[in-house]
Amino acid sequence: MTGMIVELEVNQMEQRILLTACPDSKGLIAQITNICYKHQLNISRNTEYVDPVSGQFYMRTELDGFFNETTLLADLDRALPAGSSRSLLRRQAKRVVILVTKEAHCLGDILIKVYDGSLSLDIAAVVGNHPQLATLAERFAIPYHYVSHQGLSRKAHEQALLQTIQPYQPEYLILAKFMRILTPAFVAEFPNRIINIHHSFLPAFIGARPYQQAFERGVKIIGATAHFVNNQLDEGPIIQQKVLPVDHSYSAEDMERAGRDVEKAALSEALQFVTEDRVFVHGNKTVIL
Amino acid sequence: MTGMIVELEVNQMEQRILLTACPDSKGLIAQITNICYKHQLNISRNTEYVDPVSGQFYMRTELDGFFNETTLLADLDRALPAGSSRSLLRRQAKRVVILVTKEAHCLGDILIKVYDGSLSLDIAAVVGNHPQLATLAERFAIPYHYVSHQGLSRKAHEQALLQTIQPYQPEYLILAKFMRILTPAFVAEFPNRIINIHHSFLPAFIGARPYQQAFERGVKIIGATAHFVNNQLDEGPIIQQKVLPVDHSYSAEDMERAGRDVEKAALSEALQFVTEDRVFVHGNKTVIL
Amino acid sequence: MTGMIVELEVNQMEQRILLTACPDSKGLIAQITNICYKHQLNISRNTEYVDPVSGQFYMRTELDGFFNETTLLADLDRALPAGSSRSLLRRQAKRVVILVTKEAHCLGDILIKVYDGSLSLDIAAVVGNHPQLATLAERFAIPYHYVSHQGLSRKAHEQALLQTIQPYQPEYLILAKFMRILTPAFVAEFPNRIINIHHSFLPAFIGARPYQQAFERGVKIIGATAHFVNNQLDEGPIIQQKVLPVDHSYSAEDMERAGRDVEKAALSEALQFVTEDRVFVHGNKTVIL
Amino acid sequence: MTGMIVELEVNQMEQRILLTACPDSKGLIAQITNICYKHQLNISRNTEYVDPVSGQFYMRTELDGFFNETTLLADLDRALPAGSSRSLLRRQAKRVVILVTKEAHCLGDILIKVYDGSLSLDIAAVVGNHPQLATLAERFAIPYHYVSHQGLSRKAHEQALLQTIQPYQPEYLILAKFMRILTPAFVAEFPNRIINIHHSFLPAFIGARPYQQAFERGVKIIGATAHFVNNQLDEGPIIQQKVLPVDHSYSAEDMERAGRDVEKAALSEALQFVTEDRVFVHGNKTVIL
Repeated sequence: MTGMIVELEVNQMEQRILLTACPDSKGLIAQITNICYKHQLNISRNTEYVDPVSGQFYMRTELDGFFNETTLLADLDRALPAGSSRSLLRRQAKRVVILVTKEAHCLGDILIKVYDGSLSLDIAAVVGNHPQLATLAERFAIPYHYVSHQGLSRKAHEQALLQTIQPYQPEYLILAKFMRILTPAFVAEFPNRIINIHHSFLPAFIGARPYQQAFERGVKIIGATAHFVNNQLDEGPIIQQKVLPVDHSYSAEDMERAGRDVEKAALSEALQFVTEDRVFVHGNKTVIL
Repeated sequence: MTGMIVELEVNQMEQRILLTACPDSKGLIAQITNICYKHQLNISRNTEYVDPVSGQFYMRTELDGFFNETTLLADLDRALPAGSSRSLLRRQAKRVVILVTKEAHCLGDILIKVYDGSLSLDIAAVVGNHPQLATLAERFAIPYHYVSHQGLSRKAHEQALLQTIQPYQPEYLILAKFMRILTPAFVAEFPNRIINIHHSFLPAFIGARPYQQAFERGVKIIGATAHFVNNQLDEGPIIQQKVLPVDHSYSAEDMERAGRDVEKAALSEALQFVTEDRVFVHGNKTVIL
Repeated sequence: MTGMIVELEVNQMEQRILLTACPDSKGLIAQITNICYKHQLNISRNTEYVDPVSGQFYMRTELDGFFNETTLLADLDRALPAGSSRSLLRRQAKRVVILVTKEAHCLGDILIKVYDGSLSLDIAAVVGNHPQLATLAERFAIPYHYVSHQGLSRKAHEQALLQTIQPYQPEYLILAKFMRILTPAFVAEFPNRIINIHHSFLPAFIGARPYQQAFERGVKIIGATAHFVNNQLDEGPIIQQKVLPVDHSYSAEDMERAGRDVEKAALSEALQFVTEDRVFVHGNKTVIL
Repeated sequence: MTGMIVELEVNQMEQRILLTACPDSKGLIAQITNICYKHQLNISRNTEYVDPVSGQFYMRTELDGFFNETTLLADLDRALPAGSSRSLLRRQAKRVVILVTKEAHCLGDILIKVYDGSLSLDIAAVVGNHPQLATLAERFAIPYHYVSHQGLSRKAHEQALLQTIQPYQPEYLILAKFMRILTPAFVAEFPNRIINIHHSFLPAFIGARPYQQAFERGVKIIGATAHFVNNQLDEGPIIQQKVLPVDHSYSAEDMERAGRDVEKAALSEALQFVTEDRVFVHGNKTVIL
């Protein structure tokens, strides 16, 4: 009887997400969905994409039923070609650490969305290189660490950041208007796991002071870009972009103020995709299924 | 040898689209994609949707390979549950007749898009209850039929329209700002095959003079709705909607002028979906895969 | 010396906004701007609108200089025709009371925007007919009053609300997802001073459960409407509307979740217009200058 | 009596637009609107802008009444500071020559909009460096000149273009997907009078093959930019920009196809501003009143 109870606990009715990435070949969808069928799993949603240039196949499958994870993954591994990756994910809040500088709007938007259940994140901590946002984080009962860069070399500051972050073991770092450029050494600690919001419509206005650049160019639309961070400044895979019309009457400061809403929207939609396990990184691009 | 050549001619490498609609059951995707695999067909794109309320399953599968249509459909029919429908479509221009009144913008947009290859339609004829657009149609070498409603009962006018249209055997009728209400008897001749553009963001401003209604209400956004026509005025399944911000300075006429661009955009996007065989009618809604 | 100091205090360099509304006549702009010029005031921005149907003239003038308010208004009153109204406003945060029920997203967005200086409001209090949002308000050090409607007649509940609100003497009431219908008697206490966010693209889906209505109709775009409240349900002058594309895969609950972002955007943009003194009420419409 | 009749003929009731650009000074709006008032002209719409950096003042005034152009301009010239420019424009179709290469969508959109009265242009001729679009222009009874660049130096080709264009004395040249880079010498013939549509969201993807660049960068939004042409490639004052969301499934060709709609929308909105005399060029920017 006890064994049976354990069995029920282990194998209760669940919803999970199967992510598959592998070289394309004929019959892949049939093979994978057949294995799910043999495991008596129901597919409630299935989306796939084959990149026509590289022939890489991506599939996201929402499954519900009783999972025997070990045998399911073993069956998949037998069926899938060499060079495949697959994962079977539980729907649970992603554990994150948020890095900030002084601006409150992105952090505030995330806090409110987590507060009201719109965004499924487990915010372990907020880390800032300035003290301003401590109060805001603490109002939501989230630990705030002030790790100043003053008087530190870039390397020493990043070491201090790492020592602060690592005990929390975050799945993702969110740069919610963190106004420091990260070195390749730091980025390498979190490959494709750092999400940044850049306050321009990339690749326009790479680098510093994009609103000033946009103002000087006289653009009629401004934007924001949420992307994974890699070694090149503002060059990582783009997850989401949002834009906003402006006109001649906007100063650089007006653009900055108006831009806050698209910054938080782009970041929050990117985080939504990530929390729903919909984002594959494909070279310097994302595939969102 | 000759037989073999004929065989090759019949069964040359092709791209086709398989549309499936049936009650959902576990393993459906596996069964259908397995049959495709056994026929050595490659799936280049697969999208599906299960309506959670009704449990109806819809799938659109882009296939390429050598098709043996008869055995493929027979295999599918054996596998699919009762109440299923499936079709295996060639990628070819849909044959349409366009109905118009006096306004040129929607007809003009379709003509230019067909002219430059953006829209895959075979426009068999344009039929108008006024003579104004004859010149425009004829400039693109498309027959124009002027079927006036003057002095005719609604029934007699619709009879005249039917007699003009039916010889062309269109797959779809496009109402490109055709300003007449069609009776259920007429609509029944083309079930889910009449596409209308309504100049409001339905269900706001049903009926006559929607821009005047929008002006009087003081809305800040106007819109247009492309939908299939059924027996209820402005009540058929919506295919696409587009909107446009306006402000207090817009008169009803200004809204009408500005609205032309969203009308033609909504209609043209709806037609794009239809030409790509992406639209399923599900009750009074559309599922677009 | 003392007198001079007083003089400097009264007449220091300031920015103010002159709002004028009156029947149109030839030379109005010249007359008003002349008076400003004679007062040595600089016009940094001037926008005006004449309603062509009613012939009503509206003008908003941003002035900077040294203001002698009494003589300036007297000069204007001599120049303007009968039936005119004018006001000379200081740029200062509007005092508001926010009414809520259970949903946090609109309140949270306003709190964050006031916190980071994006929105110039002085939030005197938050009043809820449920207790859920007390914590959120209090985290931002704003008094929360729980005024339950349980066991009270509508009239008695509104009396209780009024008694709670009036001591704060708010310029505006903000209904940030306050899910109670207000009676004409209550609304009459705050004419054109109650701002509501309605969770549909009015006039579509007036009344209860608009997302359910939108889901059942199968629309491809959902929206939200910020408007002044008058006696008719969902019928007051519209200030701002925002929309969001949806598709067949959205349940009513998905629409509700996605709709939160357009609700808060529409409300926050409407509040921005109000805080900048840009909104004139013209019959059942708004003119936004 | 005859003189009086002539006077009435000359000075009949008209609508005109007064454009003023000059260094800002206190009382400018009052002075200009006073002069209009003394001329018994009614202002139906007035918009102005002062650039805070340069202190340049721009005003657009819609006037109706009986115009004595000579004395009105003389009065204005006396009042305006040194370095002013002013013009009093009739509302009439702008005379243009359209330059094209092979793509039909922008030319087609303009032709349809002029045909149905949406766009007030007098298209004198279409000039192409390829023959493909001759038929389309001729269907709308507009002369088409095929001026091939084959076998010609850039200078010789531009000479041939100029000889073709100049007899038409166009106010503006419209580059409706004209895929040749123009030299400074050619551009100098039409200062701020050449309007180009560039198929990217400038300043992203300057130069050749922007859709290929956008595809390689993996952007989630593509765009188009209508701008005046100056000596720097893709660097002139931006008039309008429009964007369109895309996703990972778009090839460069898909982006190009989808981009057609934003290209024609950006160009057509820019042309609308120009035809309504709403565009001031301010350095490398536009002020649109």
